[in-house]
Amino acid sequence: MPEPGRAVLPEQPASLSGPELHRLDAYWRAANYLTVGQIYLLDNPLLHRPLTPADIKPRLLGHWGTGPGLNLLYAHLNRAIIRRDLSMIFVTGPGHGGPAIVANTWLEGTYSQCYPDVGRDATGMARLFRQFSFPGGIPSHVAAEVPGSIHEGGELGYSLMHAYGAAFDDPELVVACVIGDGEAETGPLAGSWLSNVFLNPARDGAVLPILHLNGYKIANPTVLDRIPREDLLAMLHGFGYQPYVVDAGAGQDSHRVHQELAAALDRALDEIATIQRQARTTGQPVRRPRWPMLVLRTPKGWTGPQQVGGHQVEGTFHAHQVPLAGVRDDPDHLAVLERWLRGYRPEELFDADGVPVAVVTESCPSGAHRMSANPVANGGLLLRELDLPDFREYAVPVPEPGATVAGATGVLGGWVRDVIAANPDRFRLFAPDEVASNRLDAAFEVTDRRFLGAIEPGDDHLSPDGRVLEVLSEHLCQGWLEGYLLTGRHGLFTSYEAFIHIVDSMVNQHAKWLKVSREIAWRRPIASLNYLLSSHVWQQDHNGFSHQDPGFIDHVMNKKAQVVRVYLPPDANTLLVTMDHCLRSRQYVNVVVAGKHPAPCWLSMDDAVRHCRHGLDVWAWAGTAGAAEPDVVLACAGDVPTLETLAAADLLRQHLPWLKVRVVNVVDLMRLQPETMHPHGLSDEVFDRVFTRDKPVIFAYHGYPWLIHRLTYRRTNHQNLHVRGYQEEGTTTTPFDMLMLNDLDRFHLVLDVIDRVPGLADRATELRRLMVEARRECRDHTRRYGEDAPRVTEWRWMGTRPG
Amino acid sequence: MPEPGRAVLPEQPASLSGPELHRLDAYWRAANYLTVGQIYLLDNPLLHRPLTPADIKPRLLGHWGTGPGLNLLYAHLNRAIIRRDLSMIFVTGPGHGGPAIVANTWLEGTYSQCYPDVGRDATGMARLFRQFSFPGGIPSHVAAEVPGSIHEGGELGYSLMHAYGAAFDDPELVVACVIGDGEAETGPLAGSWLSNVFLNPARDGAVLPILHLNGYKIANPTVLDRIPREDLLAMLHGFGYQPYVVDAGAGQDSHRVHQELAAALDRALDEIATIQRQARTTGQPVRRPRWPMLVLRTPKGWTGPQQVGGHQVEGTFHAHQVPLAGVRDDPDHLAVLERWLRGYRPEELFDADGVPVAVVTESCPSGAHRMSANPVANGGLLLRELDLPDFREYAVPVPEPGATVAGATGVLGGWVRDVIAANPDRFRLFAPDEVASNRLDAAFEVTDRRFLGAIEPGDDHLSPDGRVLEVLSEHLCQGWLEGYLLTGRHGLFTSYEAFIHIVDSMVNQHAKWLKVSREIAWRRPIASLNYLLSSHVWQQDHNGFSHQDPGFIDHVMNKKAQVVRVYLPPDANTLLVTMDHCLRSRQYVNVVVAGKHPAPCWLSMDDAVRHCRHGLDVWAWAGTAGAAEPDVVLACAGDVPTLETLAAADLLRQHLPWLKVRVVNVVDLMRLQPETMHPHGLSDEVFDRVFTRDKPVIFAYHGYPWLIHRLTYRRTNHQNLHVRGYQEEGTTTTPFDMLMLNDLDRFHLVLDVIDRVPGLADRATELRRLMVEARRECRDHTRRYGEDAPRVTEWRWMGTRPG
Repeated sequence: MPEPGRAVLPEQPASLSGPELHRLDAYWRAANYLTVGQIYLLDNPLLHRPLTPADIKPRLLGHWGTGPGLNLLYAHLNRAIIRRDLSMIFVTGPGHGGPAIVANTWLEGTYSQCYPDVGRDATGMARLFRQFSFPGGIPSHVAAEVPGSIHEGGELGYSLMHAYGAAFDDPELVVACVIGDGEAETGPLAGSWLSNVFLNPARDGAVLPILHLNGYKIANPTVLDRIPREDLLAMLHGFGYQPYVVDAGAGQDSHRVHQELAAALDRALDEIATIQRQARTTGQPVRRPRWPMLVLRTPKGWTGPQQVGGHQVEGTFHAHQVPLAGVRDDPDHLAVLERWLRGYRPEELFDADGVPVAVVTESCPSGAHRMSANPVANGGLLLRELDLPDFREYAVPVPEPGATVAGATGVLGGWVRDVIAANPDRFRLFAPDEVASNRLDAAFEVTDRRFLGAIEPGDDHLSPDGRVLEVLSEHLCQGWLEGYLLTGRHGLFTSYEAFIHIVDSMVNQHAKWLKVSREIAWRRPIASLNYLLSSHVWQQDHNGFSHQDPGFIDHVMNKKAQVVRVYLPPDANTLLVTMDHCLRSRQYVNVVVAGKHPAPCWLSMDDAVRHCRHGLDVWAWAGTAGAAEPDVVLACAGDVPTLETLAAADLLRQHLPWLKVRVVNVVDLMRLQPETMHPHGLSDEVFDRVFTRDKPVIFAYHGYPWLIHRLTYRRTNHQNLHVRGYQEEGTTTTPFDMLMLNDLDRFHLVLDVIDRVPGLADRATELRRLMVEARRECRDHTRRYGEDAPRVTEWRWMGTRPG
Repeated sequence: MPEPGRAVLPEQPASLSGPELHRLDAYWRAANYLTVGQIYLLDNPLLHRPLTPADIKPRLLGHWGTGPGLNLLYAHLNRAIIRRDLSMIFVTGPGHGGPAIVANTWLEGTYSQCYPDVGRDATGMARLFRQFSFPGGIPSHVAAEVPGSIHEGGELGYSLMHAYGAAFDDPELVVACVIGDGEAETGPLAGSWLSNVFLNPARDGAVLPILHLNGYKIANPTVLDRIPREDLLAMLHGFGYQPYVVDAGAGQDSHRVHQELAAALDRALDEIATIQRQARTTGQPVRRPRWPMLVLRTPKGWTGPQQVGGHQVEGTFHAHQVPLAGVRDDPDHLAVLERWLRGYRPEELFDADGVPVAVVTESCPSGAHRMSANPVANGGLLLRELDLPDFREYAVPVPEPGATVAGATGVLGGWVRDVIAANPDRFRLFAPDEVASNRLDAAFEVTDRRFLGAIEPGDDHLSPDGRVLEVLSEHLCQGWLEGYLLTGRHGLFTSYEAFIHIVDSMVNQHAKWLKVSREIAWRRPIASLNYLLSSHVWQQDHNGFSHQDPGFIDHVMNKKAQVVRVYLPPDANTLLVTMDHCLRSRQYVNVVVAGKHPAPCWLSMDDAVRHCRHGLDVWAWAGTAGAAEPDVVLACAGDVPTLETLAAADLLRQHLPWLKVRVVNVVDLMRLQPETMHPHGLSDEVFDRVFTRDKPVIFAYHGYPWLIHRLTYRRTNHQNLHVRGYQEEGTTTTPFDMLMLNDLDRFHLVLDVIDRVPGLADRATELRRLMVEARRECRDHTRRYGEDAPRVTEWRWMGTRPG
C-alpha cells in the first residue's frame, strides 16, 4: 500500500479507448446540458431557435456548481457498472445537485418510466426543464421524487452513513457515495468515515466514498480543500481508506481527467472485488480491510461561464448557485447562457426529436443495473415481512395487577433476541453503546456486536458477524438505520431518551421524506423507523439533569400526523404488544418510551392486547367509580406516571372510599388528538365519554405537561384538565425525589385531586395533612439516608383485579 | 516533524527529579483516594477505623473508570502550570469523571472556598464524600456546580469545540482538553479536530487536546483504541496536529508513565510556546502551525480492583461505573474496597485532621493559577459590557406603515458591523457559511472571515484575523460560541432556521447549564446565547421542504422559562431594537427569527422601541375598531404572517368597512403565556383587554400553530382562538404559494374571519367568493408562470398612519 500522504495514483496507461472516451465525453456533455437547461429554460429546450427572454424562467432557482462533477462521476460509474455487471446505487451528498441527478435519470430512461408525461423526447425535455424548481413541479434537491435516490442531501452530513446503512447485509451492492467537501465539515459526516469498522466484507456490500473536492461552499472555500493535501490524505488513510486522487486542475484537459478517473475507479473497484473475494472465499477470519476511496478535485461549476460581470465564476464560490442571474433582463447574460448551452453541442447529443442519440444512451446500463432503477433505492420493492415470533409467548404472567414485577425492556429483550435470530438477513439492532444498559442484552444470547476493529480477550460479544451495531454516536445509529430501512430492511434503534435529541434534525428529514414518499406513486412503503427510548427521564436519577429530557416526543409531534406515532406502554406486556405492532408497521416514525427497571406489571397479555388496540382505556379495576360518572378522572401516560397514578388511586380508595375515581391509561398518545388532526384521534364523543364533559382530570404524563394541553385543547373538558409532568427540574438524586421535584408523585396527585374536586377540600383536610406530611417524610428520609423512604419502595398495588 | 504514524516520543532523559516524582505520585494517590471515597463512603472518610457496611452509601452512583486518568493529567498539568506560570483551564470531555475533578478542586482548596461547609479537613472530607451523587448533594458529572468547569460532559462530543471557543481571543490561555475515546466516536467531536483551521496563534490562546485512550465505553471497546495505532496517528496528523503518545501499557510501572507524561507535556508546551512566539514576534504573516497534542493510553479504572467476581475489572469496561456493586451486603466486596482505599496510603496524604499534607498541596498552583479558580472558567467574572452603537442611528425611516421596504437582516447587518468594529476583543459572529446568505455581509466592511487554511486569489474576505467564524457545521458554531460565552465574551450565531435543529441537543444542555448556574452563588452571569434565525421557513421556497422547519422555537420553549426568550420582530426597526436588547441581556437563550428579503417596514424607530418594550401591542392604525370593542382580532407574530395579516386587514377595510377589526402584533412570544408561567407573561387582565374575552381571534403565526395554543390554553378567550401557521406542507415553489399551501395567506385569513365572526357568513358572500377566486387565480398564475401573481407582489399597505 502506498504511504499515507503519498497516495496519489501511480502512472497508469491510458485505460480508455478512443470510442470509450468519446462516449463518456458525449454522455457528460448531455448530462451537463440537461442540468443547465433545468435551471434556466422554460422553453426552447433543444435551442432549435435562438434563445429569447421568454425562454427563460422568471425565477432562477437551483445549484449549478456541484453538477458537472456529479455528472462526471455518474458517467464513469455507469461505465464501470456495464463493464463489471455491478449492482450499484448513487448517494448524492451535495443534494442541491438535484438537476444533475435528474438529468442522469432522464438519460437512463428511468425518469420517463416513473413519470410518463416527461418522455425522453423534445416534449418531455421541455417538461423536464420547466418543472424543475417550478411551482407544481419538482424540488431543487435529490428528494424522494428522484428515481434512484435514498438521500435528499438538503441537510448536509448524512450521505456516508446512509451509504453504509444501505450496504449492510447486501453483499452484491456497491454504494457510490459522493461526499461534498462542504458536507465533510459537518460533525455527522466527520464521524461517519470510521463506519468501515462495522462493515463486514464477507456479508455486507461495499461503500465507495468519493470525496468531491469542489473547493467552495456558498461563500467560502472548503476546509478540506485548503489544508495541506498530504494532511488530507493522511487523515483519510488514518480512517482506514486507501485514497486515490484525481485532480482536474483548472479543468482545461478533460480528456486527461477522464483517463485518470477511469483508471482510479477501475483500480478501486478491482480492490473492492479482491477484498470481497478474499473475505468470502479463503475461509480465513474476516478482517477489516483497507477499503479504497476516491478524491476527485474539479473546478466548481466546471464547463460553466468563466467570468461574469468582471469576476471569475468557474472554479469559485460564485458558481455555487445560478452563475448568470440576470438572463431575462440582460442581453449579455442571455448571450453567455446561449453560448454556454451550445458549447455542449446538443445537436450531437439529441436527435431532432430530442431523443438522446446512441453515443449517449450506450453509456447507460440497462434495466435494474441503472442506478436510477436499482430496486435497492426503492426499498419497499424489496421489503420482505419480518418473521416475528409470537409476542404472547414472552408474556409476563400477571395474575392480578401489580402482582408481578418485571423490567419492561428486559422482557422485550427476549423477544428482540428471537426477532434477530429469525431474521438474520433483514433486521438489525442499533444503539449508542446502550443495548446492555437498556436491558436488551438477551440479544447477545444469539448474536454479537458487529466489530471489525481488533478484538481482545475479555471483550463482550464482539465479532465481525454481529447483528447488533453499537457505536457511541446517535448520528451513526440513526443514519445507518435510515439507510438500512430505505433499502428495504427493518430495524430498531434503542437510546437513552435524553440524548435522542442529538438526531432531532435527522428525524425531521426522515419524516419529511416519508411524508413526501406517500405522495409518490412509484415509491413503495418501507419499514417504519422504530425508537425504543429507555433509561428515560425518570430513570436518570443517577446521571442527573443533563440526562433528563423527555422532549423528543414533542419534537416528533411537529411532523406530519400521517407519519408519526408515539407510544407509552405502561408495563412489560404492553411494551411487547406495542413493539410487535411497530415492527409490522410501514412508513412511520414510531417512538416508544419504556422503562428498564423492575416495575409492577398491570395487565395480563390478553388485557394488554386489548388495551393497546384501544390506545387508551378506562382501567375500571383501578378506580372506584365503576360504571358511574366519576367525581374525578386520574389519567396517566408512561410507566412511572402510571405507577404514581395507581398509587394515588389506592390512597384515595383507602382514605376517601366514597369518592368516585376513574383511572384512564393512555398508551397511544395520538388518541388524545381530535380525529380531524390525527388518524388515531378519538372522536369527541368517545373522548367525552372517557374523560367526562365537566369533571376534573388529573393527568400524570411522562414528559413536558404542555404537550397534553396541545393535544387536547379543543376537547370539551379541556378547561378541567390539569397535567403533571416533567417541569425541567432535576439533578442526581433518588427516583422518587425526582418525582417530587416535579410534583408528579402520588402524594401530590392526591393533593391535586383534593384541590380540584369541588367541595373536597373541606372534607379531606386530614388526607391533605397526611399527604403533605408524607412528602416531607420522604424528602427528609432521602436527604438523610440517600435512598427512597421504605413506604415508597415497598408499596404495592392493593386494588382489585381487572374485571 | 516526525512522520505520521511514527509520532511516538523520541527517547527522553528522565525529566522528573526524585522529589518531583514523589510529589506527583502522592498527589495522584490523594486524588484517586478522594475519587473512590466520593463514590462509596458515607462516613469514616480517613479510614481511621475499619470499614463497616454503615460507612457505605446505600446507592452507589458514579463513574470510576475514567477517574485515575483524569487525576493523572490534572497532577501533571498542575506541575506544568507551576513551572511555567501558566493560565490554564481543564475541559473534561468524559464528564462522568465528576468525582475525579471534584477531588482535584478540593485538594486545591477552591472547593472549600466556593462551598465553605465543605472544608479542607476531615469534616469537610466526610461531607465531600457524602454529598456526591447524593440527594441534596451534587451531581455525578462535571456540572456547573464544579469550580473551574465550563463543560458538564454529560452529553458527549462537545469538549474540543468548547475548548476552542474558550481559547479564542485569550492569547495567554492554554486550554487542556481531555477527549474521551468514547466521546471521540461522536460526530460533533470528530468534526471538532479541524477547529485549528480557525485558531490564530498570534491572537488566540492555545488548545492542548489530550486524547484519553481509556479503551472502553459502557460495554464496548472504543473504536479509536482498536484501529491500528499508526492509523490513529495518521488521522491526528492529518487533522494538523503533532501527536505525542504516552502509553501506560498494563499499568504496572506508574513511575515510567509519570516520566513519559511529564516529558511529553513539557515538549508539547514548549512547542506551543515556540508557535506563539513565532506568530507574535517575528512579524511574519501568521500561518496555521502544527499544534502538539497528547495521546494518553491508560488502563480503564487504573489502580482499582483487578478482579471482581471472577472477571477482570481494571483495564476493562467493567471498571466504567462502580466496580464493586455489592459492598454493603458482601463482606468480600467490602474488604476489597478497604484494601483498594488503603492502597493509596491515605495516612501519608492527609494528616490526622484530614488536611492534605504538604507533599500533596505543594503540587497545587496557587490563587487564580489553579485550574479550578481560573476566572476564565467563571466567565461572568471577566465579562465586560459590549460597546454597542446606538441602534437608533441605523433606523429605516418609516414615514408611514409599509411605505419603506427593507430587508430586516440587511439593516441589522450595518449595526452588527459596528458592534464588531467597536468590540474587537470580545464579540464574534458565528455562522455555517450563511453570513452573506442571511444578509449580514456588511460585517465584511470592517472584518474578514477567520481562516488559517490556504488563502487563494478570489477568496472573499478571508484572513487569520477575521472576527467572523464561518464553518459548515452548526455544531462547531454552537460549541465555539458556548465556549466563548462561558469564558466571559459575547457573540451572535446566525443560521438558517430549519437547520438550527442540528444543535437542539446542545442548546438543551446549555439551557440546563444556565438554569443551574442561576442557583449557584459564586457563578456570575454570562452573556446570553443569541440566535438570529433567517432564511426562515417562509423564505425557503427555493430550497424546498427539507429547508422548511420552524420547530426550533417549540424545542427551546421546553427549557426553563427563566432562561428562554423568543422574539419575532415584524420588520427592520423592531429587529434592531430586539437585537440590541438581546446583546445586553445575560444568562438567557434568545431566539430571534427575522427575514432577509425586502419587506415592508411598519414602525418608525420610536414606535419600534415602544412596541418591543410592550412585547405585544394593538396596532390601532392597522385596524378599524379604534378604541371600540372589535368584532374580530387579527393577531400576528413573525414578519411574513404580519404582512399577510395587514393585507387581510386591508382587504376587510376595503370590502367590509363597517367590520370592527383589531390588529395585534406579537414580537415577544413569551408575553402570551400566563404571568405565572413566564416572567414576561401578561396578566389575564391585560391579555383579556387586548384579545377580548369573547371575540374571535385569527392568529397568523410564523411556526407550528399549536405552539400558540400551548401558550394560551389557560386564557379566557382561548376557545375563540384560531391559529394559522406552518402545517408541514412545503416544496420548491413561490413564497406566496408556500403561504397558500399552509392556509396562512391573506385571502385565507379573510375567509377565516368570515367563518368565525358570528353572522358574517351571510353578509359577506361576495367577499368570500372574491377570496376563493383570488386564491385560485394566484395558484393558477403561479403554476403557469412560475412566479407569484402581480396582485400579491405589487400589493402595498394602504392603511392609515400610526396614530
